Amino acid sequence: MVAPLKVGLAGLGTVGASVVRLIERQREALEARCGRPIEVVAVTARSRGKRRDIDISRFRWAADAVALASDREIDVFVEVIGGESDPAKRAVEAALSAGKSVVTANKALLARHGVALAALAEQHHVALNFEAAVAGGIPIVKTLREGLVGNSLKRIYGILNGTCNYILTRMERENLAFAQALEEAQRLGYAEANPSFDIEGHDTAQKLAILASLAFGTRVDPGAVYVEGIASITPEDLRAADDLGYRVKLLGVAVKTENGIEQRVHPTMVPKGSAIAQVMGVTNAVTVDADAVREITLVGPGAGGEATASAVVSDIADVARGVRTAPFGCPSARLAGVEKAPMQRHEGGYYIRMLAVDKPGTAARIATCFAEESISLESIMQRHFGPRPLGGEDPSAARPVPVILITYATTEDAVRRALAKVEAERVIEGKPQLIRIEKT
Amino acid sequence: MVAPLKVGLAGLGTVGASVVRLIERQREALEARCGRPIEVVAVTARSRGKRRDIDISRFRWAADAVALASDREIDVFVEVIGGESDPAKRAVEAALSAGKSVVTANKALLARHGVALAALAEQHHVALNFEAAVAGGIPIVKTLREGLVGNSLKRIYGILNGTCNYILTRMERENLAFAQALEEAQRLGYAEANPSFDIEGHDTAQKLAILASLAFGTRVDPGAVYVEGIASITPEDLRAADDLGYRVKLLGVAVKTENGIEQRVHPTMVPKGSAIAQVMGVTNAVTVDADAVREITLVGPGAGGEATASAVVSDIADVARGVRTAPFGCPSARLAGVEKAPMQRHEGGYYIRMLAVDKPGTAARIATCFAEESISLESIMQRHFGPRPLGGEDPSAARPVPVILITYATTEDAVRRALAKVEAERVIEGKPQLIRIEKT
Repeated sequence: MVAPLKVGLAGLGTVGASVVRLIERQREALEARCGRPIEVVAVTARSRGKRRDIDISRFRWAADAVALASDREIDVFVEVIGGESDPAKRAVEAALSAGKSVVTANKALLARHGVALAALAEQHHVALNFEAAVAGGIPIVKTLREGLVGNSLKRIYGILNGTCNYILTRMERENLAFAQALEEAQRLGYAEANPSFDIEGHDTAQKLAILASLAFGTRVDPGAVYVEGIASITPEDLRAADDLGYRVKLLGVAVKTENGIEQRVHPTMVPKGSAIAQVMGVTNAVTVDADAVREITLVGPGAGGEATASAVVSDIADVARGVRTAPFGCPSARLAGVEKAPMQRHEGGYYIRMLAVDKPGTAARIATCFAEESISLESIMQRHFGPRPLGGEDPSAARPVPVILITYATTEDAVRRALAKVEAERVIEGKPQLIRIEKT
Repeated sequence: MVAPLKVGLAGLGTVGASVVRLIERQREALEARCGRPIEVVAVTARSRGKRRDIDISRFRWAADAVALASDREIDVFVEVIGGESDPAKRAVEAALSAGKSVVTANKALLARHGVALAALAEQHHVALNFEAAVAGGIPIVKTLREGLVGNSLKRIYGILNGTCNYILTRMERENLAFAQALEEAQRLGYAEANPSFDIEGHDTAQKLAILASLAFGTRVDPGAVYVEGIASITPEDLRAADDLGYRVKLLGVAVKTENGIEQRVHPTMVPKGSAIAQVMGVTNAVTVDADAVREITLVGPGAGGEATASAVVSDIADVARGVRTAPFGCPSARLAGVEKAPMQRHEGGYYIRMLAVDKPGTAARIATCFAEESISLESIMQRHFGPRPLGGEDPSAARPVPVILITYATTEDAVRRALAKVEAERVIEGKPQLIRIEKT
């Protein structure tokens, strides 16, 4: 009989408990498929005595994550503590340095310290697997690292945050305001009490930085990601998108351009007929554009204990079968520095919604500002709420009317200049809303 | 420097030529990602002199596939000849017996001889990889074999034949008859001159048999697959489906039931909102229902030289990296025999379209036949073409009218009995059309 793979598990929250259950439930299948049993032998977590719905009495209890990481008995260290700093960081470093493979679900740690940790893993000839860190149960890391190895990638984009997608789905379907949809998401446990990390796009940005590294063979660099959240999206935007044949999704997009790798997270208009537009609620999805395979889309659960544990267990199984791939596909020393494509040079179509002062010539003046920046308009819609009041010649009496522009492909820079001009003309009220359109 | 992985390639058609091009185009990336170069060293094909758009003069020419398979210089034998019999079969056997890993795109060979070949590969401790055999560029084999290893699968279903999906898409969008859409597909090269293998569902059945084995750890058995093709589908069916909120797709479905594994290929109604219903044209898609991950869908190109070559190259890269997995996930000796769930016991909803004799009481008599078999009807629609002609009391003068039934979940057996009764009542003309509804 082949020796079992001995697992040390740090973190016994929802994911950790699911990992324990899954390894037990699939004991036989895992042994058959890996050629050896997989056994949890030692665990640790913040509190030993906490009530849990799994029995941990049969596992040895380690004093802390770092102690567990260098425990002589374990072969693989599974880190589901989370957080970019200690104890997760120190524990993962300790395990790798002790020559143990590491499986982690920790996106923050990888986004911040991924390259250094990959180098450490390579130096000690062990695996550093992190399928669960991006898009939960969707095997996108394996697909990029192994499945698409014969391709040059052009673009990767996805819905990587279930909270935001749930909120946008509810807003669209029930015509809810952002705040209402967020409240509902919080009530249902889909959003944290402090939701800013999700709704401001930072969670998506960390995951995107990891995907971009895998996709383009570049160093992970979350600082190179342009980030906008979804709080500014209104039901009016979603209705207008619908009228125009689009849906609004918070996308993470990494794309190879002439100016380098563009990485951006922002609300995005995608054609209703595209695969990504069909993805509703907390579901995640990732689309890859590559030279050989053209387009591949993976759709599945982005979070949840069992789905995340499924990814963790598949990473553990790879270790059990003796598979070791460079953590980011390419050996860390060969990862190229990210040449960050500046957002001002981003090219694409734009949706712009403004509240225009309702007086003659306003639409013409707005259109002129765009024309002066050589931006072609695909459409311009001005929506009156009703008949203009008597004496409408007097601007002070006029109500502002929404004006919606759709531009043909142009640059971020040109759009920003055109909007500055429009603002200087004093023909709009408040800040214009701007949503980028992604070709899918 | 690490020794290169030396590839012998049998077959220089569209896929073979693309494999050569891809390995060349990705030379550097493959070396970085696999830790060693990948080199084609010898090739063979039916005709040496044939004009090709790749230069094969730099490769050694092998007399035939079997000679190439046992060539001392090669490390891995790539078979893209096709066909379940010789030379493909004998060549793959020769390679495995000579201790060489094999990469193949040959679904027919695997469906028919998969288990024996897997046993041979295991006996000689080499890999038998076949990502390209099912759903082209979609990494579904890797996902099942490795990515979902922590899951118990309940069901796997997919659009596995681009020809059929193209035809159904055209019929739906352009209101074309089957024959017209087929002709168009042939003109565009999406369908063979002899299209029966595709349109009768046999291609899908072979792929499904392979997927079912990977999903459920059972022996590949294409004989256990119930197969119906798409030739009977009419534009009327597609319109009715649309009215009812469905689309019609040729699905391969394998599902674990109380009665064993049900494997079936047939035109299927799927809810318009489901991921699989969005898949249009020659694109393929596979959805997996599993206990931990719930639902995952992979969408991508099911055919085409480059997409298929992408899968072949990823399989070669796995060999280069020293990865070896049991070909069907589970070691072949542990694959269970397929307990075939008989189609008569299939449970689900049904769409049934009949041409009913237009006389009073017909709908009631049809409904009674179903009621007697304890089948509940979700809806019954009778469509008149227009006013009944004068003297309509005389059955000989009446035109038949389409009657469409949608049943709640019932068994195939009950539906067949009810339809036999309806036919015995002589209230319908011709054969009823029956399309199964799949819950997605």
